Amino acid sequence: MTAVPTDREQQVLDRIDKARRRRAKVREERITLSHGSGGKATQTLIEAVFLEAFRNPLLEPLDDAASFTVDGAALALTTDSYVVSPIFFPGGNIGDLAVNGTVNDLAVSGAHPLYLTAGFILEEGFPIEDLLTIVNSMKEAAAAAGVSIVTGDTKVVQRGKADGCYINTAGVGSLLRRDLGVSTARPGDAILVSGPIGEHGITIMLARGELDIDADLVSDTAPVHSLVSSLLSAVPGVRGMRDATRGGVATILNEIAKAADVAVIVDEKTIPVRTEVRGASELLGIDPLYVACEGRIVVVVDGAQASLALDTLRAHPLGAEAAIIGRVAEDPPGLVLLNTTFGGTRIVDLLVGDPLPRIC
Amino acid sequence: MTAVPTDREQQVLDRIDKARRRRAKVREERITLSHGSGGKATQTLIEAVFLEAFRNPLLEPLDDAASFTVDGAALALTTDSYVVSPIFFPGGNIGDLAVNGTVNDLAVSGAHPLYLTAGFILEEGFPIEDLLTIVNSMKEAAAAAGVSIVTGDTKVVQRGKADGCYINTAGVGSLLRRDLGVSTARPGDAILVSGPIGEHGITIMLARGELDIDADLVSDTAPVHSLVSSLLSAVPGVRGMRDATRGGVATILNEIAKAADVAVIVDEKTIPVRTEVRGASELLGIDPLYVACEGRIVVVVDGAQASLALDTLRAHPLGAEAAIIGRVAEDPPGLVLLNTTFGGTRIVDLLVGDPLPRIC
Repeated sequence: MTAVPTDREQQVLDRIDKARRRRAKVREERITLSHGSGGKATQTLIEAVFLEAFRNPLLEPLDDAASFTVDGAALALTTDSYVVSPIFFPGGNIGDLAVNGTVNDLAVSGAHPLYLTAGFILEEGFPIEDLLTIVNSMKEAAAAAGVSIVTGDTKVVQRGKADGCYINTAGVGSLLRRDLGVSTARPGDAILVSGPIGEHGITIMLARGELDIDADLVSDTAPVHSLVSSLLSAVPGVRGMRDATRGGVATILNEIAKAADVAVIVDEKTIPVRTEVRGASELLGIDPLYVACEGRIVVVVDGAQASLALDTLRAHPLGAEAAIIGRVAEDPPGLVLLNTTFGGTRIVDLLVGDPLPRIC
Repeated sequence: MTAVPTDREQQVLDRIDKARRRRAKVREERITLSHGSGGKATQTLIEAVFLEAFRNPLLEPLDDAASFTVDGAALALTTDSYVVSPIFFPGGNIGDLAVNGTVNDLAVSGAHPLYLTAGFILEEGFPIEDLLTIVNSMKEAAAAAGVSIVTGDTKVVQRGKADGCYINTAGVGSLLRRDLGVSTARPGDAILVSGPIGEHGITIMLARGELDIDADLVSDTAPVHSLVSSLLSAVPGVRGMRDATRGGVATILNEIAKAADVAVIVDEKTIPVRTEVRGASELLGIDPLYVACEGRIVVVVDGAQASLALDTLRAHPLGAEAAIIGRVAEDPPGLVLLNTTFGGTRIVDLLVGDPLPRIC
C-alpha cells in the first residue's frame, strides 16, 4: 500500500518530474523528418540539444519571440527559416510566407513588427526570374505588414546541395505588452481560433501533385498584426496568443496546456474546417487539427470576455470566421481533451511522426 | 573636340553615372556560384534584385549591419547564413563561425553585440552527435563574445535536399557609435589590417582534401568585438571598419574606395600573409587578397593616428600582427591600386568568378 503524498511531497515529486522531462534525450542517432514536424520529436530535439546548450532566461520560455530590453526599449526578436516545397503554391510563395511568418511571430508575442532581415540560400541553377518573383512577393508582404527589410545575406551552394531556395527571416519589434503569454492561461478561460484551420498545409500537399485531388483551396498565409492589434485594444482579458503553423492548432493547444499546467478542453464540432480541407485530410488519413495554418491565431482569453473577443475577431477581415473552440479547466493538467463530434472524448497529444514535411 | 565639363556639369554626369550603375541588371538567367562569391556578381545580384525590391533608407548603405532607433534605443541588426563545406575544419566549425560572423558584423558597425537568433536547416540523416558538437561550439563562442542566443528555429529537409547543416544567425546590438562608416574615408587616411589574411579560406580549401597539400594552418575565426572596442576607445580618429570575409581584403578595399569615392592605395609588401597561405594560394592560382578571413578587420583611420591605431591593435591578442597596409588618396576615385612587391602598380578590382565557393 502506497501512502498518498502530502501537498508538499507532491510539489517535490512534480519538480523532479519536471526536471526529468527537462533532461530530454534524443534517442535517434540521426536527424529524421519528425525532428522538423513541430511535434514531439522537434520538442525533444529543442530541449535536449538547443535549450541544453544555450540555456538562458530569455530562451527558456521557448516563446514565438524572445523579449528583452535594450537601453530602455522593450523589444521582441524572432527567427524562422523557410524550406517550403514547392516554393510556389496557390495563395503565395516562399517569399510572402517568410515575411508573414516572422511578422506573425512578433505580433502574437505582443510586439509591433518593425524590421526584418532576409537570408537567402540559393542553389546554383535557380532561375533568376523565380528569385525576382519571390523577392517581389516579399516586398509586397513587407509593405502590407508595415515592416522594412533592412539587411540581408545571400549564399549560393552547388547544384544538388539545396532545394532551389531557402529563406531565413529574423524580425525585431517593439514590445507593446509584456504580460502576454499562453502560460498565464487559467481555468475558466476561453480558447478561440481566428479562422478555418489547416488550409496552408493541405494547399501545399495538393500543390505537390502527388495526390490526384483537385480542390479549390489557397494557403491562408497572411500577416496577422492588425488582427492582433485590434484584439488587444478591444479585449483587455486576452491572456496570450500563438500562431498555429507547423503542428497545427493541436500543437498550440498542447503548448497552452503544458505551459500553464492546465487542461484544455475543445469541442470538435466548433472548430472551423473548410469542406475541402476536411475531405483532403480524410483522404490523407490525417487530422486537420495537426495541419499547418499560416494566418490563423489561437487566442486564450478571460472566459467573461469570450464573446467580446469573438466579435472583435469577426469584425476584422482576417477573423471573419473566428470561433470559440474550447475552454481551460483545472484537470487533467497538461492535457488536451477533445469532445468529438460523435460524442466521445479523446486526448489530443503532440504529433509523433511527420505526415506533412516541409510545409513552411 | 569635347569641352571639359564644368564642376556642376561633372556633378550631373556623376549622378547619372551613379544612377546607371544603380540600375544594375543580372545578365544570367540562373544563379551561379559567382553570385555567392562576395564579388562583382554578388554585388550586381544584390543591387538588381534585393535592393531594387526592398529599397529603403536603412538597407541602402548595404553596411554589415543596419542601424535604427526603436523607442529611443539605437540598435544594429545583421544576419548571415552559413553553408561552409566541410562543416568541421581546423580551428573551428560551422557553429562558432555562425556566432563569430554575426558578432563581428555588429562589432565593426560600432555596436555592442547582445542577442543572437539561430536558425538551423538540417538534412534528414545528419548525425545528432555532429549537431551536438556544433551547438556546443556555438555555446562557447556565444559565451566568449558575451552574447546570448535567445530564439531559434529548426527545419528538416529530406535526404539529398541540403548539405548536412546550414545555420543562419541574426544579431541585435546596442549601437555605441553612429558616426562610423567606411564611406567617411578621406584622402590622408591610413588603412590597417588586424592580422595575417586569407587563413580561413585556405584552411577550408585544404580541409576539402581536394589538394594534396599539408599545411600547418587553422581558420582565424574569432570574435573581434573586444579588439574593436579597445580600438574605438583609444583611437578617436577611426572612420570605419569592416570585417574581411567572403571576397577577402580586396573586396573591402573596393567597398571603401566606392563608398567614399576615393582612391585606396595599398603596398603589397606590407600586407601580412603567412608563408603557408602564400604557398597554397600560389598553388591554387589565387591572390590571397581575395581569400576570406573570419577574424580580421580592415580599419580606416585618420592618417595622423595611424601609429596609435597600430599600437592599439597590436596590444590585443587578436591584433598582434596588425599592419598599416595603405592609404586613402583623392585620385583615381573609386579604385584600389596595389603597389606590387616587384615595383609595379595594378588595379585591384572586385572578384569576377568564384574560385573558392562555400567558404563561410
